[in-house]
Amino acid sequence: MVVGGGPRLAGSCLGILAGGGPLPGQIARTVEGLGCRVFIVGFQDFAEPRVIEPWPHRYIRLAAAGEILSCLRAEGCRDLVLIGPVRRPSFSDLRPDAAGVRIMGRIGRALFSGDDGLLAAIMRVLTEEGFVIHGAHEFLSGSVGRSGVLGRIQPDLRALADIRRGQDVVEAIGRLDIGQGCVVQDGLVLAVEAMEGTDRMLLRAGECRQPGRPGGVLVKMLKPGQDFRADLPTIGSDTVRRAAEVGLRGIAFQAGATLMIDSAACIAAADEAGLFLMGIDEGAAGMPTT
Amino acid sequence: MVVGGGPRLAGSCLGILAGGGPLPGQIARTVEGLGCRVFIVGFQDFAEPRVIEPWPHRYIRLAAAGEILSCLRAEGCRDLVLIGPVRRPSFSDLRPDAAGVRIMGRIGRALFSGDDGLLAAIMRVLTEEGFVIHGAHEFLSGSVGRSGVLGRIQPDLRALADIRRGQDVVEAIGRLDIGQGCVVQDGLVLAVEAMEGTDRMLLRAGECRQPGRPGGVLVKMLKPGQDFRADLPTIGSDTVRRAAEVGLRGIAFQAGATLMIDSAACIAAADEAGLFLMGIDEGAAGMPTT
Repeated sequence: MVVGGGPRLAGSCLGILAGGGPLPGQIARTVEGLGCRVFIVGFQDFAEPRVIEPWPHRYIRLAAAGEILSCLRAEGCRDLVLIGPVRRPSFSDLRPDAAGVRIMGRIGRALFSGDDGLLAAIMRVLTEEGFVIHGAHEFLSGSVGRSGVLGRIQPDLRALADIRRGQDVVEAIGRLDIGQGCVVQDGLVLAVEAMEGTDRMLLRAGECRQPGRPGGVLVKMLKPGQDFRADLPTIGSDTVRRAAEVGLRGIAFQAGATLMIDSAACIAAADEAGLFLMGIDEGAAGMPTT
Repeated sequence: MVVGGGPRLAGSCLGILAGGGPLPGQIARTVEGLGCRVFIVGFQDFAEPRVIEPWPHRYIRLAAAGEILSCLRAEGCRDLVLIGPVRRPSFSDLRPDAAGVRIMGRIGRALFSGDDGLLAAIMRVLTEEGFVIHGAHEFLSGSVGRSGVLGRIQPDLRALADIRRGQDVVEAIGRLDIGQGCVVQDGLVLAVEAMEGTDRMLLRAGECRQPGRPGGVLVKMLKPGQDFRADLPTIGSDTVRRAAEVGLRGIAFQAGATLMIDSAACIAAADEAGLFLMGIDEGAAGMPTT
């Protein structure tokens, strides 16, 4: 089944494995609008009720893999999409069901690699179980950050140099499966993201900020070789406001590989705060194609 | 003038440019014990009175470069050593004197590179001014962390694997002049150090810790190509206790390139807390030479 001019589905129902945030609902709306059924498995403690409850759904614990797989099969979902943040659960909180234990065995050491390694292993297991995994960007083409400057504010030459340095940094840490972001101010790397996530890195960058100089730039990129089907960098208007609060002057993200939650709201927030928002093409900072 | 079997000095008095911590006093004691004069320039707000006041000294603001240079010349110090942490001052706090402004011009863009770039530029200017810069390790040979396991606790194979991964991470971030440390737990990089320093990174690593698995390992290394004369990684018993508090199980440092503040106290603190302390040879984690 082909959804609109969009992705080709193997079955008649798209299963959405949903973490937090509004994007699971946006995907459901898009897919239903194109005449295809959806079923949302909301990860307990992560999925937001107001987002998923308008759609056919069920809450299941992250580690109840047996329950998740049989639910998806019962609903006729051969196609899956993983969307929305979850925190890496602690071992003591996991309490996997019987299938969960078996699957954890198949994931093996990757349980303790970086997010990228872990997600790749989970997608491998789901594929072995007969599912087809799609990327969220296939259903959210209007929400994928495009190349070039998106709002009214233009980065100056020094900001472009900071973006270029940030790209080098994120590429280096991404290659080691550490994280997807960093903050650079006038050549100085203020903070590098690992397990703590972007929000906490932004706070720290604000505290390490060098006064009397132009503000820093947040750079978010995919890890080199990262699978597009999981954990795309995501930017919302709250990210923009938080960046402004800690004194940054812009955000650069990888064009074509970053999900924007309501891009009009992001751009409005950036314009209001005086921040630039810029989609960069991989390996070509400072040379937007639009 | 040769100090004991130690470093050869160009003049008769060693000038110590002192930041915080006890090491300026340790160097003064060693050098005076070998029959050489010392004069300490204590950086205001950083140097600790109880450490430097037993020795001939003067407090000078970090940015009062003219005052620092003329004081060192008046005291007959051609040889200098930089020791003890200072925070990178904010521009608004700097208030450089006239010579300071000229020197900042000579340092130029490096003012805004990473610590390594900045310190290299400062050492270049001091050398151009006719001073000879020595490394603190030349005067503190007894305080340089040696290769191998230092205390009672031995790292197991998984800890050695974490050390190896940490070395790769620190090498990658050091190559980009970002920082000198990271924390790895069972293959997962919990935190990477940039401008915030080791103590804050340790706190964050504790918060991102994955329960139910062996604790993480702090890895501290020189940046590749870093000049040994400035900003050697330093470990004290407080570092050890802080690492234990956040649930780490060991500290690995670069042998021959790490200063230990009272190594007996470090080892005692590690033994008491059940942490291992291990000096690693560059590029040879897990293969201590002793």
